[in-house]
Parts: sequence; C-alpha cells; structure tokens
Amino acid sequence: MNCLTKLNGAARHNRSCLCIGLDPEPEKLPAGASVTDFCREIIGATYDLVCAYKPNIAFFEALGSSGWSVLKDVIEAVPRNIPVILDAKRGDIGNTARAYARAAFDELGADAVTVNPYLGRDSIEPFFEYRDKAVFVLCRTSNPGAADFQSIESNGKPLYQIVADKVETWNRYGNLGLVAGATQPSELKAIRDAHPTLPLLIPGVGAQGGSLELAVKYGSSGGGLAVISVSRQVIYASSGTDYSQAARAAALLLRDEINQYLAA
Amino acid sequence: MNCLTKLNGAARHNRSCLCIGLDPEPEKLPAGASVTDFCREIIGATYDLVCAYKPNIAFFEALGSSGWSVLKDVIEAVPRNIPVILDAKRGDIGNTARAYARAAFDELGADAVTVNPYLGRDSIEPFFEYRDKAVFVLCRTSNPGAADFQSIESNGKPLYQIVADKVETWNRYGNLGLVAGATQPSELKAIRDAHPTLPLLIPGVGAQGGSLELAVKYGSSGGGLAVISVSRQVIYASSGTDYSQAARAAALLLRDEINQYLAA
Repeated sequence: MNCLTKLNGAARHNRSCLCIGLDPEPEKLPAGASVTDFCREIIGATYDLVCAYKPNIAFFEALGSSGWSVLKDVIEAVPRNIPVILDAKRGDIGNTARAYARAAFDELGADAVTVNPYLGRDSIEPFFEYRDKAVFVLCRTSNPGAADFQSIESNGKPLYQIVADKVETWNRYGNLGLVAGATQPSELKAIRDAHPTLPLLIPGVGAQGGSLELAVKYGSSGGGLAVISVSRQVIYASSGTDYSQAARAAALLLRDEINQYLAA
Repeated sequence: MNCLTKLNGAARHNRSCLCIGLDPEPEKLPAGASVTDFCREIIGATYDLVCAYKPNIAFFEALGSSGWSVLKDVIEAVPRNIPVILDAKRGDIGNTARAYARAAFDELGADAVTVNPYLGRDSIEPFFEYRDKAVFVLCRTSNPGAADFQSIESNGKPLYQIVADKVETWNRYGNLGLVAGATQPSELKAIRDAHPTLPLLIPGVGAQGGSLELAVKYGSSGGGLAVISVSRQVIYASSGTDYSQAARAAALLLRDEINQYLAA
C-alpha cells in the first residue's frame, strides 16, 4: 500500500491530523524508564488519536550503540495501520543516498522519511523511488535560523518556494510531500497556496511557539493533507510516572482542537 | 588539541593532503571480509599516507543494528594523530542538532563532521561549539543535482557563495571549513578566491570524475588547507584479497600526484 494512502486512512480512521514526534531525551524521562519502554507506552496510550508517529533518529543515535535497535523496537511497536515517518533529514550524493534509503526503509521499516533538499534531485530520488514509501522534503523549517538561506530570493522567489516548485515537478509517483513549519504562518500559507494538494508535514507548534490555529487553517486549505507534528508538548506532558496518561490527555486535546479548526 | 591543528599536523607529518573516504558496501567487499576487517586493513595499510579518514555514516547505517558498533570500531582503529572526519551531512533544529553532535563527537569520537547548511546557523552552532572539533559545512557539492539549488542566484551571488560567506562570519572559534566538490573547478576556484584561508574538504575526484590537478591547484591557492577526499578509487582499487596492498598503492600514487601539483 502506498504510504500516503495509509496516512490518509489513519487520519480518517482516527479522525486525526496529529502526528506525535518521538524525541526521547534520557535526561527528561521519568526515573527508571528506558527509552524503549517510554516510547512504547506513549504509543500504546495514543495510537487511536494520531495519523502518524515521527521518531527523530538523532535522539536514538545519541544513545550510542544501542540506539539503532532501540529505534527498531520502537518502530515495530507502532500498529501497522499507522505510518511511521522517520525524521532523518538526510541528503547525500547518489550512492550514499541509496545507502540511507536502505537503512530507513529496508533496515528500520519506516513508511516515510524526511530529507534535506540542498544537494538536489539525485540526493532525493533514491528515496522516492521506493514508490510505496513517502518522502517529505524540507521546505521552510520551523527554527530561528531557517531564514538564513531558505528565505533568500532569486527573481523575487524565496528559496523555500523554489524547493517546493521543484518537488512538485519531481512528484511523478505521487509520494512526495513538504515540511513547512508553523512558526512562520505567512510562509506556510504561501507554500500551501502554490501547492494545494501536496501533503504537508507541519512541525513548530507547541514548544516551538507556532500557532496551532494558523497551522491547521493554512495547512489544510486546498485539500492536501496537513499533518501537525507535536513532540515535547505530548511526550513530556508529565515528568512523573503518569507520563503515558498525560500524553494521552495532551494528544486528545490537540486532536480535538485541530478538528475544531478544521471544521471552522 | 584543536582538530584543525591535528589535521595540519597530520598533513605535514605524512606530507599528504589525501583523505581516504571509508564507504564500505558489503557487495563490493572481497568474499569473506567483514566491514570492520576491511576498513581496519585499509587503515593499517595507508595511515602514513593520509591527513585524515572520512567514514560516511550512511554505509554503516545500511548495515542495520550492527552498523553503529562497526563504525565505532573503525574509528577506534585510526591512529590518534590522524583526524577522523565523520561524513554525516547532518542538519536539524537546535535541540536535535545537539543530539547529533553528541552522537558524532561524544559517542563515536569523531574529530570533525560534515553538516548541511539548509536549516541555518542554529542547526550548525551545536557542532561548532565543540571548539576542539572541526565542522565542514556543505557549500558546493560534487553531485550532478548540486546545481538545482546551490547555484540559484540572489543579487548576482549563487547560494553556495552566500553559504560560504555566512560560514566565514560564524567562524569565531576558527574551527569551520567548507565542502567544495572537484567536479565544478570554476566554482571551487570562486569559493577559494573569496575565502583564502578556510580549510576545504574536496570530494569528487576519482569515481566522480573531477580533475585532481585543478582540485589541488584551486583548492590550495590562498594558503588554506585543501583536503582531497577519495574513496572508491582507493578502497576498491582491487576486488581481490590484495585489497589493502592495492589501496596502499593507489593512495601512494594519489599522495605523490597531489604533492607534484602542490609543488607546481
């Protein structure tokens, strides 16, 4: 099954555009909880409230040699009807990109991956040639430094729009999407206006301060799916042993708030 | 010791600007050789001929759960006076970049890392704040798709030059360098002319077709170090069991050819 079909299916089934980012930092976990147990409990408590999970590989690499198998265990704990978007932001030349794609899709079993566009088409193609997988290309990111390069203009068009336009032309298998942060709503709107049907992965609400209302409003106009990704606000909703119940409560609130904005 | 001091020291000691890229692909190894043994033997046969080794993390990730410890073993096999540049091309928002930096420097023990500039300053800062480490920022890459975005112009200046200029302004600890491919010599020359002293990591000769002579000529003008990175041409010099001797012979030829061009 095409990953975007699965993503849309999970969104419909759970009436949810919420994606939970799994960014486990050992120093933030409740005493005694392992990363694997922590993530599994979060998944177990929220899988009927989300359209996807997004583990960020950096937090697993930071665990050292056990990180890879912990990440694999976490991915395997996700129910199979819920897609796993591996937040990897990879980008390298052709033969290396193929190795990264093998790692993400064949070794880890992710359904989708985030990639960085700086190296151009041949750095992304080895990922989107997995036609049953999806690839979200960084377009306008949510961090303060994003404007350093993404907002430089060429012939009146900012780089992030040039990236979005190229991604649309590369989308021959219909499995590409964009990452567009919620922290710059006007830029999110411009991306959605220019590309009404591409799925958007939208980080930046919650701890990063982006407006959830504007993220939903601008992200969902045009008919393309808007996947709202929230990490810290959900997974660290409580620092106590009740973290999974607290995560469920936070996810429920977010899902319902998103649905309210969608209905508005 | 600052990593760039170590890099310059190794270059002087071995009279070499050659960096060997360690990109082990299991299907290309001689029958029976493990990735660890293959890399260790290459290192053992060449460490007096190089200024650095550059393992690309993608090829280790593609091994699955054993990849991380294989990579760590390979890094530990490098003599301590030779720096290890981890080719990771990472780039993510602040808290995630910190996790990647911890993984590269604290967990794996690399001396330097390559990073992707698309997310801007706060995605790179967590790496260069390790003041005894070095950070090579992708500027003009060696692959065919590089021009897709790196060559778009803003006010007459291509993106890769805008990136190079920013990196120079961020270089307050003197531990930054640039990645500039050999496949576009005129762009390599433009980068070096604008930034005479920044160390350059130059991939793209050998299997990718860039001219070694021009890479050395343009890369070394101005006084900044030019690190010429070659992978496949050295590590796969023979597909037989004599691969380490063949790698040594290839590395020796390359080192001497580089030195001839430097003397010219």
